[in-house]
Amino acid sequence: MSAMLRAVDKLKVALCQIKVGTDKLQNIETASKALEQSAKAADLLVLPECWNSPYAVTSFPKYAEFFPRVGEKPTEEISPSTFMLSTKAIELGKWIIGGSVPETDGFNVYNTCPIFDPHGTLIAKHRKVHLFDIDIPGRITFKESDSLTRGDGPTVVQTPWGNIGVGICYDIRFPEYAAILRSKGADVIVYPGAFNMITGPAHWELLQRGRAVDNQVFVMACSPARDVNGGYIAWGHSTVVSPWGEVLATTDEGESIVYAELDLTKADEMRTNIPCWRQKRTDLYELRSKM
Amino acid sequence: MSAMLRAVDKLKVALCQIKVGTDKLQNIETASKALEQSAKAADLLVLPECWNSPYAVTSFPKYAEFFPRVGEKPTEEISPSTFMLSTKAIELGKWIIGGSVPETDGFNVYNTCPIFDPHGTLIAKHRKVHLFDIDIPGRITFKESDSLTRGDGPTVVQTPWGNIGVGICYDIRFPEYAAILRSKGADVIVYPGAFNMITGPAHWELLQRGRAVDNQVFVMACSPARDVNGGYIAWGHSTVVSPWGEVLATTDEGESIVYAELDLTKADEMRTNIPCWRQKRTDLYELRSKM
Repeated sequence: MSAMLRAVDKLKVALCQIKVGTDKLQNIETASKALEQSAKAADLLVLPECWNSPYAVTSFPKYAEFFPRVGEKPTEEISPSTFMLSTKAIELGKWIIGGSVPETDGFNVYNTCPIFDPHGTLIAKHRKVHLFDIDIPGRITFKESDSLTRGDGPTVVQTPWGNIGVGICYDIRFPEYAAILRSKGADVIVYPGAFNMITGPAHWELLQRGRAVDNQVFVMACSPARDVNGGYIAWGHSTVVSPWGEVLATTDEGESIVYAELDLTKADEMRTNIPCWRQKRTDLYELRSKM
Repeated sequence: MSAMLRAVDKLKVALCQIKVGTDKLQNIETASKALEQSAKAADLLVLPECWNSPYAVTSFPKYAEFFPRVGEKPTEEISPSTFMLSTKAIELGKWIIGGSVPETDGFNVYNTCPIFDPHGTLIAKHRKVHLFDIDIPGRITFKESDSLTRGDGPTVVQTPWGNIGVGICYDIRFPEYAAILRSKGADVIVYPGAFNMITGPAHWELLQRGRAVDNQVFVMACSPARDVNGGYIAWGHSTVVSPWGEVLATTDEGESIVYAELDLTKADEMRTNIPCWRQKRTDLYELRSKM
């Protein structure tokens, strides 16, 4: 039982909905300031998808950095973006789910979420598993796979608050991925994401609430603030949802920090009350993970 | 491609949100009248879960009937409830998704949805696969498995409007079941259901919209009207949802008929625009159906 892996039942989180521009150093500075501010009232700090770079297939390779190995600390020369996260994690004594940063590895570039513990160690990284390739003619067309390579595994990290699963943006459209995170013990799933002005109003909150209720987990999604002058206009509305599907905290499209306190026993309670995970008909169907 | 199996793109549906009491003959009469009324403006008529019987574990065996075999017509002596459906299907020239009726088979009782074509033939029956056993102390406790046996298979019927999948109520909590219906070609999933005053406001619409968007199908759920004097108080709010997750038609808790016209090409369009079904990472996970 995941509840047995939990040392602390109450988790204070902060989603930093920051503006992202074309100046990488400025983006790092903006994120750094948001982490400092949010740390005053939260223990787990979350950044949005692609916070050090414009969200554009042409930008990903230019802004990409080599990451440290998992279990190590980054250096400023090789990865200024993750170095800032590591430094802030130590300085603030907080856990950081570092949104996402384009990551270079060999000839490949990934959309990667770096996760740091309060010792400043990269404890895990999540490479976006499902690349955002959609085409709604005249409304929104985007093809991440033009410059990105997809990741190959699920990401679940152990924390004092139990297991936290991580996906990135389009990963949320795939119920199988969330179910696998849950089956690996996640009580919370965090999605740094940047939905747009078409899919955002239609699906951003719905998908979070759906994943929360189906998997009886808390779901959080952290977006960049909207920049109407940018190439890709983000929906914003960073949100925290309970396992019962309630929106615990949210915001509009502007720069802001969304705070919430998660009572993780609520996940245990819902799983007892509506035991649908034990009621799955594994004699008739089965979700098999090869990850 | 399911679109190739479709002869007609526009489907007019009616969800008959009728009151259900303790008098079986009266319930049959009520349902019959609602079918007659709704047939004036719809081609596919839907009844709610458990429309000939109170929704209670003690009632299911008492109100249960032997069903005809699939491919046959019922007789009035053996099954007055399904006989009425068959008769009305012929008389009105409509397809009927007959909500659900407790079904006796040997020593077992099932919560079963009978489906009739306009020739009055039982073309399929869906036995509820996931029984409703939940316990939210002081709020809602119910255990269908005290008197019901669960079904063992998915139900998808071929119609002039393509394939229509069927689940019953609690089946909607299981994303795997809906995904299997989709993988078997469903463009529409119909759930006769009777959510209650706790789970209804929290999850009834959310689950329908979630299944619709995840599977890019139309979803309809037909509830009984609320009877505050009954033992189990239904939420009502019969609803039709588009593949994009929009509520196309809904109602409150009272007796009513919900009408909608489904443009089935919208399902094709969304699947082209957001091709998440082709983007599933079957190299990393796979939902296997044994049904």
